[in-house]
Amino acid sequence: MRKFEDRHIGTNTADRSTMLAAIGEPDIETLIDKTIPASIRLSRPLSMPEAMSERSYLRMMESVAARNRVFRSYIGHGYYNTITPSPIARNIFQNPGWYTQYTPYQAEISQGRLEALLNFQTMVSDLTGLPIANASLLDEATAAAEAMAMFFDIKNKRRRDDKATRIFVDRHVFAQTLAVLRSRAEPLGIEIETGDWRSFTGGDAYFAVLCQFPDAEGCVADYRAWVMSMKEQEIHAIVAADILGLVLLTPPGEWGADAVVGNTQRFGVPMGFGGPHAAYFATRDEYKRQIPGRIIGVSVDSREMPALRMALQTREQHIKREKATSNICTAQALLAIMAGMYAVYHGPDGLTAIARQVHKMARSLASMLAERGMTVKHDSFFDTVCLEISDQEAAAIKDAAARSEMNFFFGKGHLCISLDETTTADDIKEIVEVLSVMNGGDAVAVDVGIPDTLQRSTPFCTHEVFSSYNTETELMRYIKRLENKDLSLMHSMIPLGSCTMKLNAANQLIPVSWSAFADMHPFAPADQTEGYRQVIRELERDLCEITGLSACSLMPNSGAQGELAGLLCIRAYHAANGEHQRDVALIPSSAHGTNPASAVMAGMRVIVVQCDDTGNIDVGDLQAKAAEHSSQLAALMVTYPSTHGVFEEAIKEICATVHRHGGLVYMDGANMNAQVGLTSPGEIDADVCHLNLHKTFSIPHGGGGPGMGPICVNDKLKPYLPTHPFADLEGGIEPVAAAPWGSASILLISYAYIKLLGADGMRRATENAILNANYLAARLKPHYPILYTGKHGKCAHEFILDLRQFKAAGISAEDVAKRLIDYGFHAPTLSFPVAGTFMIEPTESESKAELDRFCEAMIQIKAEIEEVVKGDVDPENNVLTNAPHPVDLLTDANWKFPYTREKAVFPVPYLYHEHKFWPPVARVNNAYGDRNLVCTCPPIEAYMEADSQTGA
Amino acid sequence: MRKFEDRHIGTNTADRSTMLAAIGEPDIETLIDKTIPASIRLSRPLSMPEAMSERSYLRMMESVAARNRVFRSYIGHGYYNTITPSPIARNIFQNPGWYTQYTPYQAEISQGRLEALLNFQTMVSDLTGLPIANASLLDEATAAAEAMAMFFDIKNKRRRDDKATRIFVDRHVFAQTLAVLRSRAEPLGIEIETGDWRSFTGGDAYFAVLCQFPDAEGCVADYRAWVMSMKEQEIHAIVAADILGLVLLTPPGEWGADAVVGNTQRFGVPMGFGGPHAAYFATRDEYKRQIPGRIIGVSVDSREMPALRMALQTREQHIKREKATSNICTAQALLAIMAGMYAVYHGPDGLTAIARQVHKMARSLASMLAERGMTVKHDSFFDTVCLEISDQEAAAIKDAAARSEMNFFFGKGHLCISLDETTTADDIKEIVEVLSVMNGGDAVAVDVGIPDTLQRSTPFCTHEVFSSYNTETELMRYIKRLENKDLSLMHSMIPLGSCTMKLNAANQLIPVSWSAFADMHPFAPADQTEGYRQVIRELERDLCEITGLSACSLMPNSGAQGELAGLLCIRAYHAANGEHQRDVALIPSSAHGTNPASAVMAGMRVIVVQCDDTGNIDVGDLQAKAAEHSSQLAALMVTYPSTHGVFEEAIKEICATVHRHGGLVYMDGANMNAQVGLTSPGEIDADVCHLNLHKTFSIPHGGGGPGMGPICVNDKLKPYLPTHPFADLEGGIEPVAAAPWGSASILLISYAYIKLLGADGMRRATENAILNANYLAARLKPHYPILYTGKHGKCAHEFILDLRQFKAAGISAEDVAKRLIDYGFHAPTLSFPVAGTFMIEPTESESKAELDRFCEAMIQIKAEIEEVVKGDVDPENNVLTNAPHPVDLLTDANWKFPYTREKAVFPVPYLYHEHKFWPPVARVNNAYGDRNLVCTCPPIEAYMEADSQTGA
Repeated sequence: MRKFEDRHIGTNTADRSTMLAAIGEPDIETLIDKTIPASIRLSRPLSMPEAMSERSYLRMMESVAARNRVFRSYIGHGYYNTITPSPIARNIFQNPGWYTQYTPYQAEISQGRLEALLNFQTMVSDLTGLPIANASLLDEATAAAEAMAMFFDIKNKRRRDDKATRIFVDRHVFAQTLAVLRSRAEPLGIEIETGDWRSFTGGDAYFAVLCQFPDAEGCVADYRAWVMSMKEQEIHAIVAADILGLVLLTPPGEWGADAVVGNTQRFGVPMGFGGPHAAYFATRDEYKRQIPGRIIGVSVDSREMPALRMALQTREQHIKREKATSNICTAQALLAIMAGMYAVYHGPDGLTAIARQVHKMARSLASMLAERGMTVKHDSFFDTVCLEISDQEAAAIKDAAARSEMNFFFGKGHLCISLDETTTADDIKEIVEVLSVMNGGDAVAVDVGIPDTLQRSTPFCTHEVFSSYNTETELMRYIKRLENKDLSLMHSMIPLGSCTMKLNAANQLIPVSWSAFADMHPFAPADQTEGYRQVIRELERDLCEITGLSACSLMPNSGAQGELAGLLCIRAYHAANGEHQRDVALIPSSAHGTNPASAVMAGMRVIVVQCDDTGNIDVGDLQAKAAEHSSQLAALMVTYPSTHGVFEEAIKEICATVHRHGGLVYMDGANMNAQVGLTSPGEIDADVCHLNLHKTFSIPHGGGGPGMGPICVNDKLKPYLPTHPFADLEGGIEPVAAAPWGSASILLISYAYIKLLGADGMRRATENAILNANYLAARLKPHYPILYTGKHGKCAHEFILDLRQFKAAGISAEDVAKRLIDYGFHAPTLSFPVAGTFMIEPTESESKAELDRFCEAMIQIKAEIEEVVKGDVDPENNVLTNAPHPVDLLTDANWKFPYTREKAVFPVPYLYHEHKFWPPVARVNNAYGDRNLVCTCPPIEAYMEADSQTGA
Repeated sequence: MRKFEDRHIGTNTADRSTMLAAIGEPDIETLIDKTIPASIRLSRPLSMPEAMSERSYLRMMESVAARNRVFRSYIGHGYYNTITPSPIARNIFQNPGWYTQYTPYQAEISQGRLEALLNFQTMVSDLTGLPIANASLLDEATAAAEAMAMFFDIKNKRRRDDKATRIFVDRHVFAQTLAVLRSRAEPLGIEIETGDWRSFTGGDAYFAVLCQFPDAEGCVADYRAWVMSMKEQEIHAIVAADILGLVLLTPPGEWGADAVVGNTQRFGVPMGFGGPHAAYFATRDEYKRQIPGRIIGVSVDSREMPALRMALQTREQHIKREKATSNICTAQALLAIMAGMYAVYHGPDGLTAIARQVHKMARSLASMLAERGMTVKHDSFFDTVCLEISDQEAAAIKDAAARSEMNFFFGKGHLCISLDETTTADDIKEIVEVLSVMNGGDAVAVDVGIPDTLQRSTPFCTHEVFSSYNTETELMRYIKRLENKDLSLMHSMIPLGSCTMKLNAANQLIPVSWSAFADMHPFAPADQTEGYRQVIRELERDLCEITGLSACSLMPNSGAQGELAGLLCIRAYHAANGEHQRDVALIPSSAHGTNPASAVMAGMRVIVVQCDDTGNIDVGDLQAKAAEHSSQLAALMVTYPSTHGVFEEAIKEICATVHRHGGLVYMDGANMNAQVGLTSPGEIDADVCHLNLHKTFSIPHGGGGPGMGPICVNDKLKPYLPTHPFADLEGGIEPVAAAPWGSASILLISYAYIKLLGADGMRRATENAILNANYLAARLKPHYPILYTGKHGKCAHEFILDLRQFKAAGISAEDVAKRLIDYGFHAPTLSFPVAGTFMIEPTESESKAELDRFCEAMIQIKAEIEEVVKGDVDPENNVLTNAPHPVDLLTDANWKFPYTREKAVFPVPYLYHEHKFWPPVARVNNAYGDRNLVCTCPPIEAYMEADSQTGA
């Protein structure tokens, strides 16, 4: 019977023969031999269990799931039970039309998720009381760290010396947040001071303060006067706030906060043992050009119709590289979309009802406990009741709670009970019963709840999007309309170089939705999470085997976080060897923009190494620079195969050079899909690498996140892997993410990928990724120059197609990218690593038919370009410069273009019946959107005006 | 917090006020009082448990599920374990884009599922070796009964006397099939003779023979010579065949079978305790006009492009009424689509590999048992091993099997073990171990398997659709492309009168996919199915409470089967009273076509009762006919509220008249959505009614099935409810379906609907269904005549909009229906019950915004009609007669219509940005398709030729 491998790999034996013939190679072995240098080929197959059948896998996972025990969680501390509305779970979270989308760089075919993300931003802006919100960050702790770094930069921008380097952090900030702040502060030279906010009065050395609202003990403190006094000293105030609490509480934006950060998990996204969830970040208008992460903005298209896009991308690390203030690249788009849709479904009234219900339960619990003579520590709270207890009582309560299958949060001398929308009156009774193991004193009458002075008075979610879809029918249709505006892997190949848009198989994703995995709190006791721990253990082992390295950290929840984590390990290694001075990171000019940005965040200086004419690292330049900085050399960051899509022959020599000078080698794992089973980071002598599980290991891109970026290291670096305050992780450095295993629930997907393919399947996947890329290159070579190939003229799993030669005739790579939309395709990676080019990566999952269809499109486009080049058509008014063509253009009686409607929208026959994708807008105006930044939902009138302008 | 009711009902309080104002009523109570006669209003609220929250419901269902114990099933007998490929489960079965589709009467917006069903027909045709296949029937037993009825009719068509009335049925046909045959044979005057086929030699009295292949004991008998000898006597041969077995076996079509029927369940559709699954029916070309059920055919559209449609609809009971040979209306579209997609995914090679694997396991099991000296009864088999055992051994094996959580099928002196694609070598070992409680004799060497003479030699599934989508990526995209061709509830309201296209909530559907419900064999022992039994018990109770009747049968798996079951109960009641002569069914002229067809199947004569000018039953005519046929009067069949959408005031008088003459009242429950909680069948004195659970009780329509049509009866009829050979059902008549509780797994959906709404919610749903209909009627009344309203000018939950007055100007109701497609809407029910009209039923789930959008469309269309009426535009060439307009029309440089492109496709502003649905074809040519019947996939060249004709 068919194996999973045959479902995952797009071609069959007959296809492969044809394709090899087109490439001119007799068999796949020869192709691989000519592609990957013999010196770095694996000497033995990967040691892995046999591939499992899909059915066996799911049955096995049922038994793994049974090893998790989901207790009722009252742990809180940033993670809460929540009810995912089933229409959202089914139509977004479990719908490949949403989760297989790519990051919305091509705005014209991303209007659906851009709107959903704009809803998210609007919700965050409304709830926090701040006008600018981004489209999500990775988790609350890193969001707080981003705010710290942002204000450090803002405060000290114009200073050379006498910098304000201190941040005051209230002691009742979540422990994981404080730990991540420490991790991020140290390399930047920021000093963290913790204490009781009430006794902190400020000072010149401070650039910011950070407090939690409600705090980690659940207390709703009145920070208003304090924050005002900080602002008078030009100290920025960062508030980490609970998103549900803000429904009832005066928003920090109204009492002076400069940035508000937090987690939107409890808006319908399961805890998943740590994630993925969407963190939020909101700030004042004046910081809009410094805000980290992606912002969705409103702009117009070429017809002046409203259109959405990612705004202010020039801030990002792709452009600013080592001058960027953040290495944030991935967002948590899918989860932000879910949280935003939760607000759309419930609306302001529904959210208020939920928040009130939670608060009522908490008040009821506090009263019942006080009546029994127990000491409720804070009388002002939202959802969390904090109880003073002795150590002896703590032990008794732990036992009783375990017997009743409940988890509380135990602190020093107290415990916290965090309630949520799932808590019922029966739950409260059972909690009180469990706590009755304490000997209560006399009954105390308490007046508890949110003080009047902190009651929210400002309305929120007033935009009609939050009141138009409150029934299931309307919500479903809204979700479907948005889905249908966006091109995803359900429509066609998304041939994004370096992004590896391969199949995300249904069976890999199914267990993620199971309660035993979805409903687990990240800080649940170890004996309740044995299923997860088995998956984590085996996945770590398998990733080490695949990379040829010896230890793994699954904590980094994005590729960029993996880079940072890896570099922090290197930094710690040098420090432990007494070589604090080693702070130079050599980075080739072809590197991803995150590399230099991460290096700076890790406290390193970036020295750029040149590439030679064939796209390879200039070994001479590398040697010279390594020698020049020999005593300061910390690391080389290298992508392999290179971002040019080539297995550089000199890689071992390059690594040896770095090692000779005392540096370590960081391998960027973005291109790991060309290595698995054939070569490895260990084989090329890298010391550490990160892996983009959302590329090579099949986690879907979710329209721009979630991602996962674990790192593997060799024995040298193993002692320095990240630790975590709530987990027994071996290692050295402070955590790089809020949860011990990052977005743990989606690790299941990569785990499944490996189990279903096994060693042979993974190797064949790699071979076929290389075959598909070489086939495309061979077919397109007669029409477009292919830049940079290996010694034998082969590319790796991706290749660069040069479009610069058409620039003189007025046709840009962007024009070609937009024209591909008319042909039903998402453009390849545009202008990276070489401006004016496409980087094409088909992956192993695409069929020959799909590859051929893409070639048909590209070849026809070439003919269209030729018309411009030859001067047969107007260089400023042609099918390319006017692309894409939305359907409503066609109805204009006065067709105003100098080519036919048919040529505009049906240039090839395959578009007629099966493969046409209609972009909902024409080309989006980027400059306009950045000039006029609008990052919350515009009033509906904007659309109506536009309609009237077009006569609709 | 919001209740489910608020998610299910489309409007909020403010909307309702506005709508009541438009109707001119002060409040909803007044509206209801003016709609439903006071004499039949319920005197007390329904007695039901409180509505549950969605979360509580799912948690409760987890505990119900835990009461089912899913043993490994080797029971077979028509139901097998199967692996539903997850991309099919996720993207079809769990995707509202597929399951909320309506029956494909509007072919232009149904091309996706029509293609999927054509694949199913092609697969069936290929595997059975017969050229004509339908698009599924309800189950194998009723399919066999349909074949019996068809050949009875064919054989005796030209005979008045001396009819051939006997059918020979081999004794090794499945017991449930034989029981259903008996149930269907008796009223038609067919005699069933059973015995060993080897000793049956034919005779003039016989019109058909029926055998099972492989038979119920798993034996693969060689019927070829026998079937040939029957044919020589002009006795038709019906073969019930196993669909997976046909992959390896010589297809019955090649050895003379005239019809082959069976179940496609094991092609990826879970057993679900009995269903739903798609039965198949294939026959010879000469019987294509007699074949029951729906057939999908290939035709062309108005541009001569290939287009699919339901063929030969004039055969159906809608048209032929009492002259129809079958009452079959609902198919099992969603399940046929899944089974067809299973074949598309596996392809011929994959199916062969699966069948071979199953057969190999069976051979291995037989050999191992023979080696242990056990007596394998048949040496020729496919997947089922039959073992001779003593009664004593049977008891011991039952015990051992129960301990090992296995189920076998126990017959007289033997047991059968049926294997399937999930069976592993380990399973075989465990079976042998369980059977080792028998004392084996000496080892016997056996030569077992499929004899050479019965090995299949003809290829199957050779059309390229079965080899183009064998990878998950390609399959997903194919499924998505088909989905996107079809309009579903995800796009817009489907206002189908009498079909009640309401919300199918995600939480109602979720448990259907749980293994504890999905993987249960319908004949599993009662102590393993307590969860299901609880659901069944409570649902029966609730349906009785809702209908005001006293007993319920959940067996009928469609509304038409419910009609038949109810009439058979009435027939049995009269017979038990010695009144065999009572055979007249009075049926109003406005009745659904299934009513007279069912009556004929129940052995009754149909007497039509006229309607008066206001659309109500002509009470005088009824009284006269009841009196005339007083001693023969068996039943009145009446729909309430009437098919004209009115609560007839005289209903109680009507029922009393029938009762006075000794007849019983059958109420057609199609319009139950206007009754629940306000009145009831019991209240109007009906004796029996069926309920369309796929209408009122929220089972999705699945693009044309599954449905469920349980009946409720009063005490008089309770003793005659259907029984079943494999279940402890109280009752009297033979079964009407293959499984005891019909398509049991989808009963969960209706169960959820009732639990989530509770008595109040259901009543409010009814009130709002009536409000929505009256609001639409009020808004459209200034533009179109509304036919038939009640005494106070109100309609019930639906109303008829008259379009006949435009016929003179050349505009038909069909033109308006097709024009609605251009406006993004599915047409209402067309020309039923009155030709040339729309029957509009909005349901309670639609929002005011959606209702208003529909009004906007209808009002604009009225303006378009006026242009024709006034003579401003060509009556044969206008936006209506040319509708719908596919997108590729727009690109024609020589726009050939006498109106603008914009008017053609964007006649109202809402279509520009959000609500446009593009039909993939222009108006489909019905006559052409019926003249040139093609019901299997046409070669791809057909499409290419068409493309070249249009210049694409």
